[in-house]
Parts: sequence; C-alpha cells; structure tokens
Amino acid sequence: MEYMKALVKTAPDHAEIQKIPIPECGSGEVLVRVRSAALCGTDLHILAWNSWAQNSGIKFPFILGHECSGDIVATGDESGNSLKVGDKVAVETHVPCGRCDQCLNGEQHICNNLRIFGVHMNGCFAEYSVVPALCARKIPDAVTYDIGSMMEPIGTSFRAVQEAQVAGLSVLVVGCGPIGLFAVASASTLGAERIIAADVSSQRLEIAGEMGADIIIDPLREDILQNILNQTNGYGVDVIIEASGNSSALKQSFQLLRKGGTIAMVGLPEQPVELEIGRDIVFKEAKIMGIHGRRMFGTWSKVERLLKAGKLYVEPAITHRFSLDGWQEGVQLAKSGHGCKIIFQP
Amino acid sequence: MEYMKALVKTAPDHAEIQKIPIPECGSGEVLVRVRSAALCGTDLHILAWNSWAQNSGIKFPFILGHECSGDIVATGDESGNSLKVGDKVAVETHVPCGRCDQCLNGEQHICNNLRIFGVHMNGCFAEYSVVPALCARKIPDAVTYDIGSMMEPIGTSFRAVQEAQVAGLSVLVVGCGPIGLFAVASASTLGAERIIAADVSSQRLEIAGEMGADIIIDPLREDILQNILNQTNGYGVDVIIEASGNSSALKQSFQLLRKGGTIAMVGLPEQPVELEIGRDIVFKEAKIMGIHGRRMFGTWSKVERLLKAGKLYVEPAITHRFSLDGWQEGVQLAKSGHGCKIIFQP
Amino acid sequence: MEYMKALVKTAPDHAEIQKIPIPECGSGEVLVRVRSAALCGTDLHILAWNSWAQNSGIKFPFILGHECSGDIVATGDESGNSLKVGDKVAVETHVPCGRCDQCLNGEQHICNNLRIFGVHMNGCFAEYSVVPALCARKIPDAVTYDIGSMMEPIGTSFRAVQEAQVAGLSVLVVGCGPIGLFAVASASTLGAERIIAADVSSQRLEIAGEMGADIIIDPLREDILQNILNQTNGYGVDVIIEASGNSSALKQSFQLLRKGGTIAMVGLPEQPVELEIGRDIVFKEAKIMGIHGRRMFGTWSKVERLLKAGKLYVEPAITHRFSLDGWQEGVQLAKSGHGCKIIFQP
Amino acid sequence: MEYMKALVKTAPDHAEIQKIPIPECGSGEVLVRVRSAALCGTDLHILAWNSWAQNSGIKFPFILGHECSGDIVATGDESGNSLKVGDKVAVETHVPCGRCDQCLNGEQHICNNLRIFGVHMNGCFAEYSVVPALCARKIPDAVTYDIGSMMEPIGTSFRAVQEAQVAGLSVLVVGCGPIGLFAVASASTLGAERIIAADVSSQRLEIAGEMGADIIIDPLREDILQNILNQTNGYGVDVIIEASGNSSALKQSFQLLRKGGTIAMVGLPEQPVELEIGRDIVFKEAKIMGIHGRRMFGTWSKVERLLKAGKLYVEPAITHRFSLDGWQEGVQLAKSGHGCKIIFQP
Repeated sequence: MEYMKALVKTAPDHAEIQKIPIPECGSGEVLVRVRSAALCGTDLHILAWNSWAQNSGIKFPFILGHECSGDIVATGDESGNSLKVGDKVAVETHVPCGRCDQCLNGEQHICNNLRIFGVHMNGCFAEYSVVPALCARKIPDAVTYDIGSMMEPIGTSFRAVQEAQVAGLSVLVVGCGPIGLFAVASASTLGAERIIAADVSSQRLEIAGEMGADIIIDPLREDILQNILNQTNGYGVDVIIEASGNSSALKQSFQLLRKGGTIAMVGLPEQPVELEIGRDIVFKEAKIMGIHGRRMFGTWSKVERLLKAGKLYVEPAITHRFSLDGWQEGVQLAKSGHGCKIIFQP
Repeated sequence: MEYMKALVKTAPDHAEIQKIPIPECGSGEVLVRVRSAALCGTDLHILAWNSWAQNSGIKFPFILGHECSGDIVATGDESGNSLKVGDKVAVETHVPCGRCDQCLNGEQHICNNLRIFGVHMNGCFAEYSVVPALCARKIPDAVTYDIGSMMEPIGTSFRAVQEAQVAGLSVLVVGCGPIGLFAVASASTLGAERIIAADVSSQRLEIAGEMGADIIIDPLREDILQNILNQTNGYGVDVIIEASGNSSALKQSFQLLRKGGTIAMVGLPEQPVELEIGRDIVFKEAKIMGIHGRRMFGTWSKVERLLKAGKLYVEPAITHRFSLDGWQEGVQLAKSGHGCKIIFQP
Repeated sequence: MEYMKALVKTAPDHAEIQKIPIPECGSGEVLVRVRSAALCGTDLHILAWNSWAQNSGIKFPFILGHECSGDIVATGDESGNSLKVGDKVAVETHVPCGRCDQCLNGEQHICNNLRIFGVHMNGCFAEYSVVPALCARKIPDAVTYDIGSMMEPIGTSFRAVQEAQVAGLSVLVVGCGPIGLFAVASASTLGAERIIAADVSSQRLEIAGEMGADIIIDPLREDILQNILNQTNGYGVDVIIEASGNSSALKQSFQLLRKGGTIAMVGLPEQPVELEIGRDIVFKEAKIMGIHGRRMFGTWSKVERLLKAGKLYVEPAITHRFSLDGWQEGVQLAKSGHGCKIIFQP
Repeated sequence: MEYMKALVKTAPDHAEIQKIPIPECGSGEVLVRVRSAALCGTDLHILAWNSWAQNSGIKFPFILGHECSGDIVATGDESGNSLKVGDKVAVETHVPCGRCDQCLNGEQHICNNLRIFGVHMNGCFAEYSVVPALCARKIPDAVTYDIGSMMEPIGTSFRAVQEAQVAGLSVLVVGCGPIGLFAVASASTLGAERIIAADVSSQRLEIAGEMGADIIIDPLREDILQNILNQTNGYGVDVIIEASGNSSALKQSFQLLRKGGTIAMVGLPEQPVELEIGRDIVFKEAKIMGIHGRRMFGTWSKVERLLKAGKLYVEPAITHRFSLDGWQEGVQLAKSGHGCKIIFQP
C-alpha cells in the first residue's frame, strides 16, 4: 500500500497533515495526482467549524479542499470514454445527480440533489484525490496547474459578468477577493466601458488595477455614492457584481445602481439584509441574479478557451504559493486578509 | 367658458366634486373627454395623504386619477400627426422626458426624469382631462372604455408575466388585487402549465379562478409552503409574480421558489424586507426583476392586440362601476378590500 | 425464444411484416412493448428508398419507425436509475453522444455525432423495440399512448413557436402537415394574437381551424401576399413557422414577413432555394432559425406538463389508426396527402 | 447669402464640386459645419448610377454623402432641447418616422417608412449640411471628427457582433472592408476567443491583423474550409460575420459554421444566393440575423462610450484622407479596392 500526504480535519478543533493510504477510485471515478489546489473561504469555514460547517454533514476524518488541478493516474469503470491516465485535468466542484429537473434542463450546477466535492466527499488538499469522473475535465497544456486549480471561481465570476451583459456598460465590482478580482478580469475581457473596483484593502485594489479595473475606490476613505454618481452623470452604474458578502455594502449597492440596471449576487452575507423593495427593486426595475457556479460545461468551455488564447488575465490574483506542509501559514494569510488567492502545491 | 365636474383634492384632509372650467390643452397635449377612469391604490394614498403623498410634490387644488380612457375633443400644437379629434384613446401614466439615457434606449417607462400623470400633473377623475399627446394612444373599437381605462395595470402585469417566460411552467401569483388578477389572466394566455393564485379574500380568489387560476390558496387557511411543494414534486414553483406588497408574503416567496426560478416584483411593501441573500438568492440562483410599468409601446401593442382578439380575458376584475358623484362609495369599497377594480364613468 | 411482429425493410424495393425474435436489450438500453407508433415523412423516404435513404447508412433487414410510446418490459445494465419495468414511456429520436461540445453545452439534440433512432438503429414499427435508456422518458398517465407517440413532432413544433416568442404577435404557419398543425396548437397555447394557417389541402386547413388557427388560407385559391398585408396593416406577419418544405412557399415567406420578424424553419425543401439576401434578410433584419428537434429535456418537460394539464390541444391531428398489419393502407394515405397523422398500434 | 463647396451629382453621368448657397435649417433640423465625411459603398452606387440608384428616388441636383461629423452652427425650431450651436455631433443616417409600429417598439432603425440621409435627402459631402435634429447626436471631445464620421458603420458592425454574443467563441469575419474591419475590432473588444479574418486583399488582411484578428486567411490562396475545420477540431466556427456581400463566399459560409452557430448578415450580395435549407439551416440549427443598422440609440451609446474609453480600436481602418476637392482620387481608390476607409475633410 502506498501512502500520501493529506490535510485532514480530525475533530471540530483540529486539523493536521497526515500520511494516509492513497485512495482507490471506484466506478465512475478517477484518481488524480493533485498538482495545485487553491484555498477558498469555504475551507476556512470548515477549519473554523462555524455553524454552517457544523450543519454540513461533514464527518471526521475529512480531507479538506475543493479547487484543484492535476493529472489522472487511474480510472475506474464507467468513468467516461474521454478520460484516460495521463490527462491533465481541473475539477468541477458541483457534483450533480443527473436525474432531477434541473440536471435534465442544462442546469446541473443547481442540481436539486447537489453534492459538493470537498464538502460532501473528501477533497483535494492531498497528494492524490478521488474525483467523480463527471467532474474531471481535461485542460489544455497552455493552462498551468495553478490557473487550473482556480477555474471554479474564475468560471463563477466569468458567468456572473457574462450573464450581466456588460458590453459597453459601466461595471462596479464590490469586494476584491478572488471572486471580485476574477470579475474585474472578466469584465475587462468582455468589453465593459468602465470597471470600478471597491474594497477596503489597498493591496487588493492594487491587484484589481493590474487586472483591468479603470477606477479603484476604498469606501472607507471616500464617498462611494458620490464618486459613482459623478462618474455616471448621476445615473448610477449599469451593472454591479456583488462579491463582498458584506451586508451593508450589499444594501448600499442598490443606491449605486442605475434604473434598469443589473446586480449579480455572488457573495454570501452572514446576516440577513434589509431591502426597501419598492425603492430598491420595483421603482428602479432592478434585475438581480444569484450566481452560484458555472454552467456545466458551457462556462468551462468559454473560460478555458479564453485562458488558452491569453485573453483572460487572472495571474495577479495569486499572491502566495505553499507546499501542503505550509498550510497553516496559508490559512493565516487568508484569514488576515493579506494576500488574495493562496495556492497549495502538494 | 364651459365647466366640468372633477374630483378635486383641496387640502390634506379634504377632497370633493367641484364644477371647474374645462381646461385647455397646450402644445404637445390633447384634451380628452374621459369616459372611464379606474381607481388605483396610488389614488387612495393621495386621498389619505400618507407620507409618500406628502413627499410627492402634489399642490392643491389637484385633480386625482391616472388610469383612464376617452375621446379626444381637442388637440394642441405638435401633438403628433397621428392623433385627431374623435380618436378613442387610453392613457399611458408614465410621462417620459425623451432625452435621458433610458428614453434613448427604449426604456421610457423608467425615464430618469419620469413624471406621472395624475401625480405630477392633474389627472382624470373628471369629465375632461388634459393629457400629454405622447401618452394618449388610440385603442380599437373592440376595446371598451372600461377595459381601456385599465390598460395601465393590465400592461404592467402582462409584462411581468411575459418577461418571466412562463410557457409550460408553474406560476404562483401572490396577491389577487387587480395587478394579481391581470397576472393570472396573462399567465393563462401565455401558456403557463399551472397557475396558482394566493390571497386572503375568498371573493378575490373566486375571481382569480374565473380568470384562469387552476388552483387557489388562502394562506391563512392552509399551509402554502406544503401545498406548493406537494404540487411541484418538492421543487417549488418556477415563477412567482409578487403582487401583494405584503412584507411577510414577499419574504416567504423565496421558500416557495424552485432553484433557478424567477420572481417578478410588482407589489410595493411599506416595510423593509429582510432577505437571507445566501439561501434565498445565491444558492438558489433566483432571478428577481422589478417591474414598474409597460414598455412604451411594445407592451401596449401586444396587450391591445390580444384584447381586441378576445384572447386576454380581464373583465371579471371589474366589480363595481360608479358615476363620479359616487366616488366616496367607490373609495370606501376599495379600502375595505371588498370588490376589486372600481371604475368611475364621469 | 419469443417472437413479435415487425415491419421490416428487407431490400431497396421491399418491406413486409415479419415474425422475428423479440430483441434483447443490452447495457444502457431498455426493451419497450410498443403501444403506439406514428408514421413520419422520414419513414416514407426510407420505404421509397430515395437518395437520402440510400446515403443514410441503413442496412437490411431493418425495422422502420421512430416515433413511439409504450411500456418498459426489460432494462439492461446501466439503464439509468429512474427507469424500471412497467414504466410508461415515450421515445426521444435523437441519440446524442454525450461527449461533444454541443452535448456538454446543453444542446444534445444537435450532437456532433448524432444518431437517429429508427434510422441509425432499428426502430419501433414492431411489437417490441430496443431503445437507448437515455432516450426513453416516462410520461404521465394522463398522456395517452397515441399522444405519447407524437411527442417528437409536437416538441419540435412547440420549440419553434416558443423560441420565436409569439406572445401577442401574428403567426403564419406555412404547411399544415403534423408539424404545421402542432405549431398552430402551440401558438394558440402560447398567446399568439392571430394564427394564420396556409395549406393547399382543405382537409388539413379544417383541422388547423379546429386546433386554433384564426384564419386559414389556401394559397392556390387566393392571393396570400395581399391577404397577409391586409390583415397586418401592410406590415407583414411577425412570425412565420415554415413547415411546408416547399421551395417556392419558403421563398415567398420572406415577402410575407414584417421588418424585424422571425422565421423558424422546420420544413426540408428538396431543392435549393434562391434568396435575395439584401432584400429578404439584411434590409428587413429578418431573424431565421433552423429547428431540428427538441431541447433534451427542457422542451419535453414543458410539452409533457402542458399536455397533462390539458392546455395543449393536439388530438385532431390524428386522422387514422391502424394495426401494424394495416401498414400499407397507412402509407398509401400518407402519400396521398389525405389524412394527417397516421398511427400504428402494434 | 453665403456659399459653400459641395459635391453635387447633376446628372446620371456627372458629378462635380459646386459653390452653392449654404442651406438653411427648418423646423426639426440643425445645420452642421461638416468636419469629416466618410465615403461608403452606397455613395459609389449613386455616383455610378446603377440600377439601385436609378430606383432610389434621387432627384438632381443632389449632394452626396451620409457618414459625417461636425459642429452645429444653427438650429431650427423644435430641434430638441438638448442640441445647441457649438455642439460637436455625429450623424445617424437612418431617419425614422417615429410613428410606425417599429418606431414605437424601439426599432426605429428598421422604421416602416425609413428615409436615409444622403439618399432621400441631401447629404454631407459639403462644407455645411442640414441634418434632422433627431439624427444629430453629441459626441465627446475624445472622439475625433474622423472617428465620428465613421460611427454609422462602426455601430452596425458592433451591433452585429454584440447580438451574436461572441464571448469566448470563435468568430469568422468574411470580408475586410470597413464593415468587416469594424467587426474584427468589435469582436476583439467583446471577448471573442479567436478572430479569423478572411479577404482577398493582403492590405486589408494586414489591417485586420492590426485591429485584432488572430488569424488571417486569403481564400484564394488557401483552403478556407480545411483551415477552419483544423482550427475548430472539426466543429466549424461559432459565429460568422458576413461582410463581403460576395454570393459564393456567403454560400460557403454555411459549411464553415458549427451546428447551432450564428451568422450575422451585413453584406449585400448583388446576385440571389442558392441555399440548401435542410443541410445549411435546419439540420445545422443555424441562427441567421440580418443587420442593417444600429439601435437608436442603444448601440450609439455603447460604441461612443467604448471609443471614449479607448477600448474600441478603429483607427487603422482609415487609409486615406482628402479635401473635398480630392473626391475623384478618393473614389478611384475606393473602386480599386486599394485602401479601406476614405475620409473627406470639407
């Protein structure tokens, strides 16, 4: 039996690197040698064992991580004709049932029986990971492992921007964590007239500028409402990508939006948000859309092609890389808000 | 000088029928002999002089009313080549500026400088009314004056249902006032699989049934959540038309909606509504759209053609008709929740 | 070994009813006791062995037929968790590969490696038929076997009408064979203002009237262009569903279309058609969409729900029913243009 | 009385520079000091007096030209509140009636009574030009007069690309005259994965490369079908912008298109084109859209903002500039196919 390193959560208050047997892949699965895995807010929730995590159904011991890329080293039965040992793949986190109404209507990412890789099954902060074959997708050589490991959040942001139809329009991205930064990059690729990025971290704003933001705003230092109205002849912005998950930022967003504008909501506020439905939505004819993942595999395909063509520029979002042994440092950085996307290379 | 009857608000706490001079129409206006005028919630707010009304800019004396139809009896200069004395017209309440970005992009109904007929200028609860020529539109003989007077709310509901794309889908209409009832009728015309109407008035539910609802629910008498889940194999409904303006109904709506479903918000809650953005919008990928009027004049045209063809069945929504002198009785009925659409025939 | 009756094409110029062994279903397949099977133009092409058929790859002996419904009597391995013996099913004709770009983007019906049931594999003019499990879909009790057997063409027509967005618009259906008639029914369900049906058979026009056409036109007996212009104030119709496959009708359609209108092309002309691209498409800003099948399974779902709810009225299209032994009479009728949808009940 | 230079067509076979009185603007008009005017194929047709021109209703003497920018020097009555002397404007060629169904539905550019500036009324190859106020639109300082004069064809191309939704998709632009080149630039701005430009002129292909084409093809020198299939794994391209107006190129386009792809037709073939409707449109589920202008003024607004922001790069399309006196040289160049967009600066 061969062994691998994995970041294992063993109890509500404990996680550690362990040497455990390399798992075997069963029917409909593939075994991936993980080359790059990206840290996401969800992983922090599980590590902190917050109320969401406590209700997630996770059982110990549990291997963390859900954003990754790597190489297929074994395939189970029925793992699909198009995958074979040696394929370079990235992983789709959403594991759809394939039989519910949404799955049968091209909306697998909001499957009625959705399971999440790295939540409802062991994840990828390990040297090897068992992945549902359905969720492993070949990526071109031109896409690096590190970029591949971020395709999930890139795709989510890209889809939000794409469905908001930003061509020739002004776009405000609220919150410049990885999701917000990828939204900035996507809006730049998709022809927004003007990309305004807002965050309270000067480091993240600087990265936003590098990734395509035309204007950056720290709402703690300046009056964002006045700024936006000045920039838009008093109309407000055409499109908002809400990626902060901050209740008060979210609430304020509606004031920054023009009549008939669109808000794509990607961030997850922990508190309920009070909205003035009449003023904020009805009179304004706001269009709001919740975005919780990529289209499988329409969004994948577009993002992969743009990455390969060098037309979607996401690299600056990666601020740190660690080996798996450096996981605690990575987690500390992520919690502190210093840095942005943190990559583990197991 | 000739005189006419009009319902005039003369002070915060007073309104009365007066004999006043028939107004003259100026440049860009037409004078309409009002044949039918419909009472709307906005009129009740103005009569009651609530906080919204106090801030509306209305100055006394003021002629109430904004939903109407009638015949053109005079035209001012520049009133458009296509209108002439004798034309049977209905009135568009939204008076757009014609020059802002929305107006120049086919969204006049959400004009940035929008004025409302019967709010920002004298209205139509009178024998004669001066109407911006832009907002008077010929209606066919086959459309009665009474139906003509309701084309504003019919169009608003129709547009909500049309943009929600209900073909073959389940639709829940929350609130069966006129807006809700017209949504029921529209969903029936546009091929909804199943129309569920919810209200707390058995009279309104009965009318909803007459107008095309397949299932009626009084949420005070039965568990609407359980009912909806039973009817939809546990998925929730595909589309919700929120026409109640009731905060708690609105809040609950999100639980009744399927993943990926659409909510059109037309009702105006007086209180802010607390939403769980993550659960209600992001994870569910809800699509929300505020609807505050018709497209000018795309929606008009579709509704007019369907009414003329006898394919949009709205008559049962009219429960009472009064002369202008009976205005107090009409207002009483409307406030009491007995009756539905109340028509004045000046 | 058990035997069944089947209509078998044994040679270019010969087809006959044979007693042959009931086939067994393999992995990923189900065995269906066929209860109803509908005759389609494609079957006539195969019987006549025209040039298309000669190039179709069909090898003798071959069981004809692709539109059917019935009951599952056996299931192979991996035939999907949701199908079991006893299920009442209808069959999807398009057999997608599941791996090409279209399949991975929710467009299986235009799979790059598309195979057709009853063309690229044995079909359903038999007491039993082996069906890819992917293509067998449960239908509700309320949908009869005969209606179930027609769900393929119903769905194709429904999708054409749905994607053309006919709400409140005028629709011209050119050609009233089954596809045209189902388009008439769909347009009626989906809120067209006016449905005009054109055909040269008075019998088919009569059925069109029964199924929802407001106006019927025999273009051999009256001037269709003048008629359409009269009906539409000289604009032309908003939407055309081209279901005739007649080259000259198709060519003329563009003159009948309003500026900015939509043509859904479903019929298959045998000859090339000469179009004046400038006049017919560019200046007119015509939108043209080829429609070759249903969305899997979005269209299925909508049509099934509407049929079950009694809101899509398709029965009059069935003009004749035969046992399998009566196949020659059915084929004669179909060729003669007398009758419309012809059903075999094996 | 003051005089100006103008290029006047005086007879079927004659045009010349004349000194004529500066015209006065009437009600609803503005007088523009033309600063830049661009030569278009339509102007060549009028100069050559081909069959289209003979039937256009043009009466001599006639001032040619319809693409221009300049400064307002006088305004007539009712010329709109937002225009004043000194404004820098570009001109919309489509003069809509404002009252037909299309105009009332936000599709003024396909007005049922459409008149064209520079065809149905005197044009802009002159020092001064009278322009319908509705069609003069302020442009920002950052947009030069020369760019302003090309906003008509830029907008047409941009709209074609925008409505084809090219984000992450492969785009083939057939024909690299100004319309094709602006389509290349637009596809680059709007996030196409890959832009392939085809033309028979190496000069134009070179400009296409400068403006954003990733791949250039001269179909006379290489097998375009094979090339396209190689680049797209055998699928064909996702989107084609047909800007050649060449019948055989247009016919071949359908073979280069993937199943489910989109063709925007902008070019105007002189000959009818034979299409295999079944193979080219129905089986392939091709979507075809005729594009004949910009949305008024939705497209204007997007293009203007992108130009101002420096995010739409169109300059290389201008190959030559002349004074009005050099018109013959400009016309010669345009006819010869040398050069691309030719600008007159009166």
